[in-house]
Amino acid sequence: MQHPSPTIANDRRIEAMLLHREIEEFNTAYAAALDEQRLTDWAEMFTDDAFYVVISRENDDRNMPVGLIYCENQGMIYDRAFAHEKTEMFAPRYLRHIIGNVQVLGEEGNGDVRARANYVVIQVLFDRPEAKLHQVGVYRDKFRRVGDRLKLAERRCVYDNLLVENSLCLPV
Amino acid sequence: MQHPSPTIANDRRIEAMLLHREIEEFNTAYAAALDEQRLTDWAEMFTDDAFYVVISRENDDRNMPVGLIYCENQGMIYDRAFAHEKTEMFAPRYLRHIIGNVQVLGEEGNGDVRARANYVVIQVLFDRPEAKLHQVGVYRDKFRRVGDRLKLAERRCVYDNLLVENSLCLPV
Amino acid sequence: MQHPSPTIANDRRIEAMLLHREIEEFNTAYAAALDEQRLTDWAEMFTDDAFYVVISRENDDRNMPVGLIYCENQGMIYDRAFAHEKTEMFAPRYLRHIIGNVQVLGEEGNGDVRARANYVVIQVLFDRPEAKLHQVGVYRDKFRRVGDRLKLAERRCVYDNLLVENSLCLPV
Repeated sequence: MQHPSPTIANDRRIEAMLLHREIEEFNTAYAAALDEQRLTDWAEMFTDDAFYVVISRENDDRNMPVGLIYCENQGMIYDRAFAHEKTEMFAPRYLRHIIGNVQVLGEEGNGDVRARANYVVIQVLFDRPEAKLHQVGVYRDKFRRVGDRLKLAERRCVYDNLLVENSLCLPV
Repeated sequence: MQHPSPTIANDRRIEAMLLHREIEEFNTAYAAALDEQRLTDWAEMFTDDAFYVVISRENDDRNMPVGLIYCENQGMIYDRAFAHEKTEMFAPRYLRHIIGNVQVLGEEGNGDVRARANYVVIQVLFDRPEAKLHQVGVYRDKFRRVGDRLKLAERRCVYDNLLVENSLCLPV
Repeated sequence: MQHPSPTIANDRRIEAMLLHREIEEFNTAYAAALDEQRLTDWAEMFTDDAFYVVISRENDDRNMPVGLIYCENQGMIYDRAFAHEKTEMFAPRYLRHIIGNVQVLGEEGNGDVRARANYVVIQVLFDRPEAKLHQVGVYRDKFRRVGDRLKLAERRCVYDNLLVENSLCLPV
């Protein structure tokens, strides 16, 4: 297979690959925080003004704003983490995120990077033996560099399934 | 961990990584085209003389040629896209492809690159609430560079499940 | 998005990316060996003194050692492969591993590299039509370089599901 690859073009491809890797790494850490129910760590992965929503594909396709979870800034995201860790009652369960098909889409005027990824969340309830597909969908993201770390300025979790079984207790 | 890594060896490893990344990127765009039901975009990802087949692991293991979908060139692939978009009747649904375990296997005499990947297609039918494993299998591929883009000269989609539920309406 | 990227920092990031890629490649070959039931090839991917265990998340969280499979060196791992290929009786099936979210965690004093990855094993039994989530969990690994190849000095397969359906016949 012939490559159109003088050094300068290669440098750009390597830069693109490093950014892709960095976002993949972010998503892996994000998944681990949720799978291990470290919700404060999860909340810290967003910017102060972050927008976070978990919304059905039906609503998203029609530009309807209502979602299962809807947070307009990091304060609301911390609130969500606190509620989950301290006040909510729900059946104990294990969750496992598989995040794949990560794609860097481009850069906004302000330097934010638009990206997407497919996700599958598999759930095991402690009173049922088998693992089940809990939620399947796509993350539509804006990443921002804060210091030397990436953070999410926006994550729209758009899920395909029409019903989220056994209620949604945890963010995705 | 010790690396056997003089610069020249590293350059080869970086080249290999760039090619792997390019094929992963191709597969991500391929999955997005199918998930968003942009079948003409899907058909454009093949070469003129492309071979595309969706075949059971049972038949593939025995070198039996019959598949659920069988296309011997891009014309037949466009036909499939057109049929789906304009003439077929089927229950509305969402699909979500997760493509993982991408592996570059080597180069053919003519420069085509052989590769493989595992895939999972998760389906949500609009009249049923839950997400289901629709199809699981492996892509066996030959990629060819056409201009500055990769295209598929061959994709064999070999699926494990013995039954493809609710009929197969869409390519994988 | 601004990059803090002088050349020397980039070189370190490229080294990290190459190691990540190498581990991903290992995992892909590992999955292929199991999916194609080449268990001797699978056993060769471990070091002489390798530790391999398949253990429930419940037991792992409580530091209980008992697992479904428990091997304290490569001899026991070869034994397992031999038993499976030559002596065990079990219902025929297809398996498909999806390994994702690969993360390099750091280096031990002796040069071993700690890493992790999420895995999903999807099973099709020959007498049932549909594909099912067979096992879902995390690999907790130590990799060691032996000659020019990576090998597993330790793999702990920690699964979420409370029941492993239809008995576990194959390693994961």
